[in-house]
Amino acid sequence: MKHWHDECGVVGIWNDVEASRLTYLGLYALQHRGQEAAGIVTLDQGIHHRHLGLGLVAEVFTEADLDRLQGPAAIGHVRYSTAGQNSLINAQPLTAELYSGAIAVAHNGNIVNGEALRRELIYNGAIFQGSNDTESLLHLIAKHPCEDTISCLEETLPRLQGAYSLLILTKDRLIAARDPYGFRPLVLGQRANASGERSWVLASETCVFDLIGAKYVREIEPGEIFWIDAAGEHSVKLKKTGRLARCIFEHVYFARPDSLVFGLSVYESRKRLGQIVAREHPVEADLVTPVPDSGVPAAIGYSEESGLPFELGIIRNHYVGRTFIEPQQSIRSFGVKIKLNPLTEVLRGKRVVVVDDSLVRGTTSKKLISLIRHAGAKEVHVRISAPPTIAPCFYGVDTPQKEELIASQKSIEEIRKFLEADSLEYLSLEGLHHALGDETGFCSACFDDQYPC
Amino acid sequence: MKHWHDECGVVGIWNDVEASRLTYLGLYALQHRGQEAAGIVTLDQGIHHRHLGLGLVAEVFTEADLDRLQGPAAIGHVRYSTAGQNSLINAQPLTAELYSGAIAVAHNGNIVNGEALRRELIYNGAIFQGSNDTESLLHLIAKHPCEDTISCLEETLPRLQGAYSLLILTKDRLIAARDPYGFRPLVLGQRANASGERSWVLASETCVFDLIGAKYVREIEPGEIFWIDAAGEHSVKLKKTGRLARCIFEHVYFARPDSLVFGLSVYESRKRLGQIVAREHPVEADLVTPVPDSGVPAAIGYSEESGLPFELGIIRNHYVGRTFIEPQQSIRSFGVKIKLNPLTEVLRGKRVVVVDDSLVRGTTSKKLISLIRHAGAKEVHVRISAPPTIAPCFYGVDTPQKEELIASQKSIEEIRKFLEADSLEYLSLEGLHHALGDETGFCSACFDDQYPC
Amino acid sequence: MKHWHDECGVVGIWNDVEASRLTYLGLYALQHRGQEAAGIVTLDQGIHHRHLGLGLVAEVFTEADLDRLQGPAAIGHVRYSTAGQNSLINAQPLTAELYSGAIAVAHNGNIVNGEALRRELIYNGAIFQGSNDTESLLHLIAKHPCEDTISCLEETLPRLQGAYSLLILTKDRLIAARDPYGFRPLVLGQRANASGERSWVLASETCVFDLIGAKYVREIEPGEIFWIDAAGEHSVKLKKTGRLARCIFEHVYFARPDSLVFGLSVYESRKRLGQIVAREHPVEADLVTPVPDSGVPAAIGYSEESGLPFELGIIRNHYVGRTFIEPQQSIRSFGVKIKLNPLTEVLRGKRVVVVDDSLVRGTTSKKLISLIRHAGAKEVHVRISAPPTIAPCFYGVDTPQKEELIASQKSIEEIRKFLEADSLEYLSLEGLHHALGDETGFCSACFDDQYPC
Amino acid sequence: MKHWHDECGVVGIWNDVEASRLTYLGLYALQHRGQEAAGIVTLDQGIHHRHLGLGLVAEVFTEADLDRLQGPAAIGHVRYSTAGQNSLINAQPLTAELYSGAIAVAHNGNIVNGEALRRELIYNGAIFQGSNDTESLLHLIAKHPCEDTISCLEETLPRLQGAYSLLILTKDRLIAARDPYGFRPLVLGQRANASGERSWVLASETCVFDLIGAKYVREIEPGEIFWIDAAGEHSVKLKKTGRLARCIFEHVYFARPDSLVFGLSVYESRKRLGQIVAREHPVEADLVTPVPDSGVPAAIGYSEESGLPFELGIIRNHYVGRTFIEPQQSIRSFGVKIKLNPLTEVLRGKRVVVVDDSLVRGTTSKKLISLIRHAGAKEVHVRISAPPTIAPCFYGVDTPQKEELIASQKSIEEIRKFLEADSLEYLSLEGLHHALGDETGFCSACFDDQYPC
Repeated sequence: MKHWHDECGVVGIWNDVEASRLTYLGLYALQHRGQEAAGIVTLDQGIHHRHLGLGLVAEVFTEADLDRLQGPAAIGHVRYSTAGQNSLINAQPLTAELYSGAIAVAHNGNIVNGEALRRELIYNGAIFQGSNDTESLLHLIAKHPCEDTISCLEETLPRLQGAYSLLILTKDRLIAARDPYGFRPLVLGQRANASGERSWVLASETCVFDLIGAKYVREIEPGEIFWIDAAGEHSVKLKKTGRLARCIFEHVYFARPDSLVFGLSVYESRKRLGQIVAREHPVEADLVTPVPDSGVPAAIGYSEESGLPFELGIIRNHYVGRTFIEPQQSIRSFGVKIKLNPLTEVLRGKRVVVVDDSLVRGTTSKKLISLIRHAGAKEVHVRISAPPTIAPCFYGVDTPQKEELIASQKSIEEIRKFLEADSLEYLSLEGLHHALGDETGFCSACFDDQYPC
Repeated sequence: MKHWHDECGVVGIWNDVEASRLTYLGLYALQHRGQEAAGIVTLDQGIHHRHLGLGLVAEVFTEADLDRLQGPAAIGHVRYSTAGQNSLINAQPLTAELYSGAIAVAHNGNIVNGEALRRELIYNGAIFQGSNDTESLLHLIAKHPCEDTISCLEETLPRLQGAYSLLILTKDRLIAARDPYGFRPLVLGQRANASGERSWVLASETCVFDLIGAKYVREIEPGEIFWIDAAGEHSVKLKKTGRLARCIFEHVYFARPDSLVFGLSVYESRKRLGQIVAREHPVEADLVTPVPDSGVPAAIGYSEESGLPFELGIIRNHYVGRTFIEPQQSIRSFGVKIKLNPLTEVLRGKRVVVVDDSLVRGTTSKKLISLIRHAGAKEVHVRISAPPTIAPCFYGVDTPQKEELIASQKSIEEIRKFLEADSLEYLSLEGLHHALGDETGFCSACFDDQYPC
Repeated sequence: MKHWHDECGVVGIWNDVEASRLTYLGLYALQHRGQEAAGIVTLDQGIHHRHLGLGLVAEVFTEADLDRLQGPAAIGHVRYSTAGQNSLINAQPLTAELYSGAIAVAHNGNIVNGEALRRELIYNGAIFQGSNDTESLLHLIAKHPCEDTISCLEETLPRLQGAYSLLILTKDRLIAARDPYGFRPLVLGQRANASGERSWVLASETCVFDLIGAKYVREIEPGEIFWIDAAGEHSVKLKKTGRLARCIFEHVYFARPDSLVFGLSVYESRKRLGQIVAREHPVEADLVTPVPDSGVPAAIGYSEESGLPFELGIIRNHYVGRTFIEPQQSIRSFGVKIKLNPLTEVLRGKRVVVVDDSLVRGTTSKKLISLIRHAGAKEVHVRISAPPTIAPCFYGVDTPQKEELIASQKSIEEIRKFLEADSLEYLSLEGLHHALGDETGFCSACFDDQYPC
Repeated sequence: MKHWHDECGVVGIWNDVEASRLTYLGLYALQHRGQEAAGIVTLDQGIHHRHLGLGLVAEVFTEADLDRLQGPAAIGHVRYSTAGQNSLINAQPLTAELYSGAIAVAHNGNIVNGEALRRELIYNGAIFQGSNDTESLLHLIAKHPCEDTISCLEETLPRLQGAYSLLILTKDRLIAARDPYGFRPLVLGQRANASGERSWVLASETCVFDLIGAKYVREIEPGEIFWIDAAGEHSVKLKKTGRLARCIFEHVYFARPDSLVFGLSVYESRKRLGQIVAREHPVEADLVTPVPDSGVPAAIGYSEESGLPFELGIIRNHYVGRTFIEPQQSIRSFGVKIKLNPLTEVLRGKRVVVVDDSLVRGTTSKKLISLIRHAGAKEVHVRISAPPTIAPCFYGVDTPQKEELIASQKSIEEIRKFLEADSLEYLSLEGLHHALGDETGFCSACFDDQYPC
């Protein structure tokens, strides 16, 4: 069920005359990572062109906008505005005219010491236009005396604490950088442009490559500064500052199921989460149904492991948009019903396993379970394909405060009672890590309260 | 896969002060039946209020619009504009000031003799504003001498040949009428309004009832004129003029899976279609994947019957809107890719059964199959959960001309070659009717070229 | 001062490939006759194209709209919506598909028996879309059996009582018609098109000809039906039904000062009105100032006749648009001040003659006089360059009800006291007619309560 | 004739709960000083609220916008975008969060060393968002170490060379500052707010005071920093750096005729300009006509001095908006005609004196003279109520380059020939200064090429 918002997605293109169009398509494929604003900056013979707007990618750009965005290199950004101020002034990429030339920055992540940096910069006379962290980075670069952007980044990036996957477009380079923890994904691909030359693609997820026909090359490594210029590819590494901490939640909920993230298939991860929760928490029942769309792969995994038949017992209305006029008099569980409709013909008289990917406040799930019972289900067994969410994220995922997270306040049995489910079980932390190959190097702070920095 | 458009959906409410809001919600639930225009007319102490607009329901109505639509009765309409002229002038409900008072009409279906009626009416001095059939009906009523709308309908409806499910709002009645063939669905429900009184709901599909919390009562019967007024419910039957001909395509593709249509669960019908095609055309394979979203229930049925595992091997991007800027230089199979992305991790090295609900021109499927192979599938076996589509519809479904229907031009083996599939099989006509309970009384003209009128 | 609204202006073009653009320019020149809606219909090889919109001409039409309006003939309309319903459905030209082919109608005037005709037509089964009189005319033509539009008009126009200056575009003709009273103006001009051929222009006022470079030929005569087709010009006369009754208010206030109306220069008429009121009502004073803009010519005339110096003692802010947000707390005489600002430096210590063209309710003038005193004027002498307005107009001018007309309720001395002016004088009825050449044949019902029909 | 654009107008309000609405009204009254963008910032308990937009004041602000702009102090700005980049990013007031708190700045004028300051600031790491001079001022203040804004201004303002009339809103003060030359006007007024307390108004012109009912107190003096805070009014003077150089063009063309500028009535100045040019260059003729609207006061003066009758021989269409679709095939002198229409009835057979306030490129005047002749004038004598414009302005008036100024390239006789006028005469420089009271302390660089700095 949708209740988390990743802040952003980024795309970069180098060496294709259709750079703005390819970036647009890439942002389209990353729309799930941010629906509040979108922007593209292109590089056209040393000059930057920019177009930003509020809304979905398809709303922000017209054909004429893309035509104006001339030039063979581009970076783009989609954003979920965390700060409540859904203003264009915070839309990215940010641009500035520095002494060393024009610069544009697109940022996915969250800088933990962003507010402190901002206060320090304002004290020293910097003027901020918006309220996002990325602007602090721009000021750090602007104030730094060195003329070369790479050396400048090598010296300023270590001042940023937290999560960042950055794309930077200067007057002659496309730069990608990822924090040493590797919180947020960033991948490199290649394709041939219309002249048959090599063109580079950088993106938050590999689904971008599938859409524009690029080949996946590799991840940008944690702590790497990678760039492309007229002379080709280059890379330097920042000094290592901590352990690897790739966001496990990208696999649990964020990323598109058709992406590779941190080298692993998201769809396969989710199916395994469902299989393992089935193994950990079997139940006698008649059928398994996902909470669509995000719960589908885990429900398929649960069905496969348990042998219980998979049914689409809850139908999702995909026409539900961002704005919706509610009835004035209460319709029972209206907020859930407008999106999800349990299927009486499938559920009536059945013992049902409902598979979802997470529980945040629990209020929506409570209503959904009530609708499922109303549709005639005899028993409702909830299985969450992740451990209880007990701690907020400080690295770029928009989560509620700790007090609002039901699992940080109540025991599983208390939550079950609140939901009025016949049973409720979560995946174990071990099961979660097992599903991702028992690799260390993940941040699962939202599930275990262990913050990497 | 989406390639058919039903022309319209209708909703009516009687006796609820929130009539406009409930109608709005009902249209929201019927959005799949028409995305080009929407409209609502309310009845407020003998006066009609109307609001129409082009676009999705959520775009057409603001809170202020609904507030202006005062009154305890309403009818609403969503439309897919068949005539190529996507103009507001054809949006419904249509309204007119007749000698007998204000009248509003919302129509789902297609009048076969609409053009002839129109020419005759113009010859007699009628002035038409738009180009839709419904306006002819209004003129027939306007010119008819009787003062009572019901008698008027009893005499004028028999002049209409073809498909109609109508909602009519006069100065004191909500009327529903359905052609004697029963082509298009129309259902009756009830709910309690905020004062605890009985309120009536009429709608194209039962998913409307689920959303607004109404109880399904029955279908409006083919050939029935049903109305509600201050004195309660009434019904008369038109003289029977032909056999029953309920649109079988509502079950195959149109209706929402969570609706009852003609008294049958659409989800269950589709699952049975998949089960029967699995029985008729088994194949040795490693997995079954639907073409999402419409192919999902049939693929679950196929998986269940065949024992082959169900996988979501093709991911659909639900952010794809109605407008989209294409790349100027060709990206291979771009039109398909923007919506559907086959999952390499699932398909690589596998023998795949792809279940879809229909094949119209075949071009999109050809591209999708090529993408599936590109994702690594070893074999691609296409199973269509309906018979070959060989004839266009004249009763309210927007189909291409006969010449554009691949199955009317090529043999199944020829189509298979065109698609470059390893095998291609369709459901048999018998299987189709068997899935719907072996009842007669369906129109399956698009599959058997037998037109009821 | 602006307090009257003429309902409409019309323009027609025949035989110019730029017909839509020339019509657009003509409507631009007639914008003072209606600011609520605008529309153009062109004739393109027997087919009509139409574009309508709410707002000013410059807002309604884009370059692309005009490009779509192909064809060498066109009619256009600007409208002031009298009926309170400022809806697009009442915008003109109206169009219909008749048995005899497409027809478009643009109408300036008011049909006195419009409501009766409408009721009769609805009784006979006609369906009306909007609420304007012009639609009744269309229905009369549609229902009339004759195939030739001219014969049809000869028979149906006599059924219309009241004021009409019509332009009609059929599939092969541009027709102009004017009621036998000649209430509203309608003039004929000619110009050469880009191929050097003769092109015809029809318009409400001659200022259209000045803008598009046409030569004034003559008025369309009262009771004349004039048309142009492939064979050239034609004309027939309706049977005479009453006396000539040309609207004298066009000269007093409506028409642009740079137009010829009924063969007379409006600017010259207004100057003469000022001269005569100066002769009739001299006063010892220091200067004459107009209420701008409409009072300027009369004030020049007053100054010339009286020998008192002409000053622009009141400045008008031309940026005042149709919407304006008022202060919440009262600013004294705010509504007047936002438009008109008396000039302290000019008025201080002076005895001032203020010349205005009319007084309707008197409230605005009262406030203006107070502002003039506040600016330091020692005496304020109001001179109205028309007689007292005592009766409403039924022929196409939007006037308040009789009870709201101050001059129908109070004596001149009472009005003077209400205005707090030192003196107030109106032009005499004789003076009015004298200024217009002592011709009979004018309707001055608003001044003398003598209605021609 | 309109061919000059002043860059900006400013308004400030202190101590009125309706500050945003009063500022809005003030900007409305100053709309002639800038039509491209408008903005308001209010001060609400130490917090700033801001709303900016492109277009006219009436288009930029809705009632809801003004309601959101809470607080008892405000500054506002209207702008004519000189830099060709008509972007919102350059709209004012500019705001920033400084170490000393929020600051907002509205600026009228032009900083001669703006580009140099900008380069220096960027070199030192400042990030600019837009391209206007005002942003440099903000950076200078931000970088300045002192905590008190007034001391900060005392030290930074002397670094600005050129013209500035500034309004600054800090977290607790409304500050007005004017450059030591006094190029641009800035006036102080007072009114009582709804609680009967004293409220301050600052504005570019006194017409603002007339509209909102304020009393004119005095000019902000050249080189003065004036501010109001909780303790009342304060003032300091910058060290004097040069001679007084008040813009004479404000009187010739810019300012509204109903304003006092530099303590003098603009209307009276313009009348005197007309009187003096009549004295300097009499001509035997039949009538005097202005080029409306800006030429009217001078034409009245000319008429008064010469004894020739004043006529409105050229009518201006006030509906001409900012966008206009031109005909594709040439209509003679179309660009002039759409705005100005010479009156045949007035001009035919007459010797006409045409009074205009300035001639820039001369092309428009040439076309107008041709239209006047076409309307029948026997002789056309052009009188310009200012000296020849020979040099561009660097202090905030948008003038063409020197080469485009016809009077810098041709002799008066050559211009006369180009215009095809029977005679052409300009006011003398002495006449100009005489009309303004023979005071020194004006900048007339555009007429005498003597730049003050």
